[in-house]
Amino acid sequence: MNYKRVYSILNKDLKIIENELERVLESGSPILQESSLHYLQAGGKRIRPILVILSAKFGDYTIDTVKDVAVALELIHMASLIHDDVIDDAYTRRGRPTVKAKWDNKISMYTGDFILARALEIITSVEDIIAHQVLSHTMVELSIGEIEQIRDKYNFNQSMTNYFRRIKRKTALLIAASCRLGAIAANVPEDLQKKLYQFGYYAGMAFQITDDILDFTSTAEKLGKPVGEDLLQGNITLPVLFAMKEPALKKKITKVHETMDLSELQNIIELIKSTDAIQKSIKICNMYLDKAYVILNTLPENETKKMLDTMLKFIGKRKF
Amino acid sequence: MNYKRVYSILNKDLKIIENELERVLESGSPILQESSLHYLQAGGKRIRPILVILSAKFGDYTIDTVKDVAVALELIHMASLIHDDVIDDAYTRRGRPTVKAKWDNKISMYTGDFILARALEIITSVEDIIAHQVLSHTMVELSIGEIEQIRDKYNFNQSMTNYFRRIKRKTALLIAASCRLGAIAANVPEDLQKKLYQFGYYAGMAFQITDDILDFTSTAEKLGKPVGEDLLQGNITLPVLFAMKEPALKKKITKVHETMDLSELQNIIELIKSTDAIQKSIKICNMYLDKAYVILNTLPENETKKMLDTMLKFIGKRKF
Repeated sequence: MNYKRVYSILNKDLKIIENELERVLESGSPILQESSLHYLQAGGKRIRPILVILSAKFGDYTIDTVKDVAVALELIHMASLIHDDVIDDAYTRRGRPTVKAKWDNKISMYTGDFILARALEIITSVEDIIAHQVLSHTMVELSIGEIEQIRDKYNFNQSMTNYFRRIKRKTALLIAASCRLGAIAANVPEDLQKKLYQFGYYAGMAFQITDDILDFTSTAEKLGKPVGEDLLQGNITLPVLFAMKEPALKKKITKVHETMDLSELQNIIELIKSTDAIQKSIKICNMYLDKAYVILNTLPENETKKMLDTMLKFIGKRKF
Repeated sequence: MNYKRVYSILNKDLKIIENELERVLESGSPILQESSLHYLQAGGKRIRPILVILSAKFGDYTIDTVKDVAVALELIHMASLIHDDVIDDAYTRRGRPTVKAKWDNKISMYTGDFILARALEIITSVEDIIAHQVLSHTMVELSIGEIEQIRDKYNFNQSMTNYFRRIKRKTALLIAASCRLGAIAANVPEDLQKKLYQFGYYAGMAFQITDDILDFTSTAEKLGKPVGEDLLQGNITLPVLFAMKEPALKKKITKVHETMDLSELQNIIELIKSTDAIQKSIKICNMYLDKAYVILNTLPENETKKMLDTMLKFIGKRKF
């Protein structure tokens, strides 16, 4: 099965979710409407809604039962992306100050707050208290992850543990929560809920590591941002941590700063790619994928399991 | 009864809440710890926790039953103040750009996000779904209120309706929610819950109008910020709306901008104070206080009612 087949099988339900996303962002405030729809219409892979749906399919699935959860999880993800962008955009773009009216940034911050609040409002339809505990805990961890990312910026001496803890908080937990909450909404038995959560966690780790590898190996066109942007912004990811094991290269990498010459950055990116850093990162990514497969294999045999398997392959095998 | 007497009667419980506020802001992240405690230790009147407690006292009150609600409501208020400050501080202070490292602002934004997430985590201990619906709805309105405040800045042609809707969203609803959620946590009968909510709403409106009057009539020392700061920032409040009914003064007021000469601003403030704008604003404030009193009078006679009465006087009669 190909991932496009999954999107096609779920197409009808995903459309309902898409319409619902648009509907709930109506606020009666034209500015807010515009800014939140702007983010919505930027699209996305809708990984979280898909995992909500697939997890729910192990229980009493109907789109009506899970759509609120799917919508809320996608909104929380969206809100976190918006806050992620707010201040980076406000101050510099490629090391130079941007001319951006402050209204825009204020509006972005509050658009994030609004979308988050809307997500919380929608998720109140889920009565199980565990769902709310999992979600709010995830949001706490997410915000700590953001703070850690700021703290760890341009910190070239951070450990791999730092990195893994950060991506867990920033990415993996919300994907895990998507699986768990989908399962809760559809009354999936608790042991299976927990397995799906674990599956989501490993899949989420693999997802983020893949993203971090793609920052080096993909093209600006596919990424929608320049290659090496993460490094330039001081986000020290797994390939960089591996590359820095070579002292000579580490010395070069530690000179990376926001206003550096871009051809110099290009040179460093090539040097990183010429080491085994990418291969080693892929290996770690595969390790997480394997862990997800181990859990997948314990799930009941059905069509949904095949779709989860496909999504996992999609997550892990995006073009490096 | 004096408001200090209320603080003194509730002292033991307020201390428990204070300790709890400090405890829940522990995150294991030193930066986050520091930034969130910074806001906590800045103090505050703790109006929301007090209203949570007093409302709960109409039901099965114990501090253990309501402390999570009181803590969560104060945290949500705190998070909203932080986001309120983030970008204003970042760009200008008294019309001049501030030199503030961007890390600080990012950290402020995420400190707000963290505190909010923590509040949500804590409030999951309340099982009644209505509590979550009221709260999340309040948060949606709060964020719309923030956006409206941005939109309405320096808009000298806005209506009084705009102003009232904005302060409802920005202030009154969260105070109303404090009353309702305190009541819910202590199993107060539903009709009484609704009365307390309404009481909180009117008290909250009076509270904000008072704040907006004090911006003109108080001193920099008492305010902790310069007199007329709201106007300088373009926040058109009730006294300004009344003052602009005089065409000649309106002409002067509409010239207010962020980088204006401060002696000129001082002159405009004096002109506003020389009109009946302050008196008219006080009258509206009293109208809201009266509405709160009408509800208060329908509540069961007890010590708590006297304390609510005192708090209402405190809210409405702060020194103009």
